[in-house]
Amino acid sequence: MRTAFYISDGTALTSETFGHAILSLFPVEFQHKTLPFIDDAEKALRAVDEINSAFAETGERPLIFHTFVDPAIKRVITTSDGVCYDFLDHYVAPVQAELGVAAQPKTNRTHGLNHEYNFRIDAINYTLENDDGVTTRNYPEADIILIGASRTGKTPTCIYLALQYGIKAANYPLTEEDMGHLELPYELKMQRHKLFGLTIDVDRLQSIREARRANSRYASLEQCQLEIDEIEGLYRREAIPYLNSTHASVEEIAAKIMTIAKLKRHRY
Amino acid sequence: MRTAFYISDGTALTSETFGHAILSLFPVEFQHKTLPFIDDAEKALRAVDEINSAFAETGERPLIFHTFVDPAIKRVITTSDGVCYDFLDHYVAPVQAELGVAAQPKTNRTHGLNHEYNFRIDAINYTLENDDGVTTRNYPEADIILIGASRTGKTPTCIYLALQYGIKAANYPLTEEDMGHLELPYELKMQRHKLFGLTIDVDRLQSIREARRANSRYASLEQCQLEIDEIEGLYRREAIPYLNSTHASVEEIAAKIMTIAKLKRHRY
Repeated sequence: MRTAFYISDGTALTSETFGHAILSLFPVEFQHKTLPFIDDAEKALRAVDEINSAFAETGERPLIFHTFVDPAIKRVITTSDGVCYDFLDHYVAPVQAELGVAAQPKTNRTHGLNHEYNFRIDAINYTLENDDGVTTRNYPEADIILIGASRTGKTPTCIYLALQYGIKAANYPLTEEDMGHLELPYELKMQRHKLFGLTIDVDRLQSIREARRANSRYASLEQCQLEIDEIEGLYRREAIPYLNSTHASVEEIAAKIMTIAKLKRHRY
Repeated sequence: MRTAFYISDGTALTSETFGHAILSLFPVEFQHKTLPFIDDAEKALRAVDEINSAFAETGERPLIFHTFVDPAIKRVITTSDGVCYDFLDHYVAPVQAELGVAAQPKTNRTHGLNHEYNFRIDAINYTLENDDGVTTRNYPEADIILIGASRTGKTPTCIYLALQYGIKAANYPLTEEDMGHLELPYELKMQRHKLFGLTIDVDRLQSIREARRANSRYASLEQCQLEIDEIEGLYRREAIPYLNSTHASVEEIAAKIMTIAKLKRHRY
């Protein structure tokens, strides 16, 4: 199997995103290796050794996706037996020409500390403190409040919204006990403009719940059907925007919510 | 102010990473706009309108960072008044030549559901259920257990490790009550090979705690100094790897931990 390396003087998150986006176009399996914080010549030489070993072992030239601020370190990496791709190569010059401003490379500017950073930490703390309806008293500060049945993806989505976009995302479960006479609690009614519903296909919900609590009423098809019917009815009756999470990743659900609810990103 | 657009038929996360990495090299402020899920001609035409309006308002051509699977939609976007950059343009052909395999573009392959996805959801659930030492009985399943004083960044780091890398990350606080006779609890000793310590500069810790609980003993300089001294002493005595989170973002802390602890990524 061919090896793909993601290398950078920082976290290598940009190199990973770049390389992964390209490799995902090809129906080929790779062994993936990330080498972050390669920020001096000695580490770069060790990286070259690792690349060359991978070539020697597999007989196929490793693909190297890298971003470096220091051209001297980059030059060391390009002496390796790997095929090197630096996505800045083709874009810095044209953007520089368009802006009429010289690039000023600085290590860790992409994923380091910056002015947007506190937003995100505050958002993560907020989201954890307002998970699963444990309290409703902080809802006035929420950017969004997700509601839905148990196991429809509310918590992972809230955490992703906080971490990726700096959004203060609370969530409130609509539970078994509410069924039969489902209404929005007073605290949610007061924040109606922030509500966003999640739903899910009944058979998918059943299988997720079955994995958590086998043979329970909670995981029964009847119960799942009842909850989803009643909750979707509530969304429609109360004109709450909602989406179905069945075939979507947490990234996709979060990006859709951002768009539909017109939320402002606190981070780029 | 010039506008930067991030556009895609999927979440636009790749376009955001790509554009942000390039723009972060320039000391220029932008207004940022993300347009995800532009997956038909009608939406593409609306995006073009938005780009052209931004040009009309500012008199400066917007920069467009985009990735599309369908070349027909891409062509619509490139008719706009913006300057278009597609980072796949320069890399698909050379990678294709190197691999000897034709690219098979598919919508949402990058940030959609895939076989690594369940790993991440399981890891998020694990991390939330094993936050802040609430229980130690699941430590045998942990990939890593972060320890440290209160407010050194354990929880956001664990969540990031789970979400980004699919790592099951528990965390355990070393608290005020333990000071003076600090020892590893039995449950942690049993998992010594999974332990990783966080520390932080005393003045930074003091200011974070002061913001949470002003004028408390918890936030006093003496208490912060005492805890950090004793905890760093424990790390050294027990040979626990650790790092200082003061000047690092959660991405940087997580990437460093992955490297030092040699953790395997469950996601690329």
